Amino acid sequence: MKMPDDVELPSYRDTVRMEWVDYNGHLRDASYMLIFSLATDALIERIGLPAAVREARSRSIYTLEAHINYLRETREGAEVRVDMRVLGHDAKRLHLYLEMFADGRPEPAAACEQMLAHVDTRVPHSVPFDDDVAGQVHALAAAHRALPPPRYAGRLIGLPAQAPGKSART
Amino acid sequence: MKMPDDVELPSYRDTVRMEWVDYNGHLRDASYMLIFSLATDALIERIGLPAAVREARSRSIYTLEAHINYLRETREGAEVRVDMRVLGHDAKRLHLYLEMFADGRPEPAAACEQMLAHVDTRVPHSVPFDDDVAGQVHALAAAHRALPPPRYAGRLIGLPAQAPGKSART
Repeated sequence: MKMPDDVELPSYRDTVRMEWVDYNGHLRDASYMLIFSLATDALIERIGLPAAVREARSRSIYTLEAHINYLRETREGAEVRVDMRVLGHDAKRLHLYLEMFADGRPEPAAACEQMLAHVDTRVPHSVPFDDDVAGQVHALAAAHRALPPPRYAGRLIGLPAQAPGKSART
Repeated sequence: MKMPDDVELPSYRDTVRMEWVDYNGHLRDASYMLIFSLATDALIERIGLPAAVREARSRSIYTLEAHINYLRETREGAEVRVDMRVLGHDAKRLHLYLEMFADGRPEPAAACEQMLAHVDTRVPHSVPFDDDVAGQVHALAAAHRALPPPRYAGRLIGLPAQAPGKSART
């Protein structure tokens, strides 16, 4: 399936900081999640929920679930870009897919799938997106619907099942 | 299924630090992953791969994939405990399940499933566990085999499929 040329994905850019890497100078697993989290913060602003609006309306976005695939090592100082897609949504939830690229390389260094919920912080409980925000969500979802299926989404974690004899013995 | 009384899970304890919470004082999503990552570091030591051994043998453990379920808010200063189980393994890989509990509450605040790989850092490529480490992995896996199935493992992220009419219109 050809990538439509006219779809520009929302993206987030950052530089891998010293405090994000381990003693080998590699981005540690939790820091990939931090970069994806900062990217998601940018997307939340993009759909009309910057901090000032969230505070004024007593709204927040909670992460319900996240799934990361670690694909390539990333070093301190690397310039990273996270591209984001809306895979689905309902009245209260947003299903996102994010890919992180380092130093302009074409193959992703990591991929992340997330399910987010829109919450009224006074309750706190999930509530439908307000109309203006829902409009932004619909617009992104409609623009991203034509994209090819994401490579690292809808995945289960697991090892191939062992033969019954083997699992009974060990 | 009754929890066998004689299985003591490896666990990791920490306190939620100021730099791990957001402006509302809640543990942010990436910091849950950091706590799970620190817990995994402790398990890696437990199976015989502390930093000194990893360095002497040119071994490392890479995270291939992680899946987090966020279940409850957690505040700065909370005392957290992460219980860890081996769900499966092969010669080179370890499939873990972790649950985080805050302030001694019985219901988990988050759960995490991870797939790890044992790597020769000189190549770098995944290689079989050395015999002594494999022995520790087998022992943990055997002790954990009798436990009831984990509640938040083997999960897909997704929303219920929309009715065709609806998805065609929006």
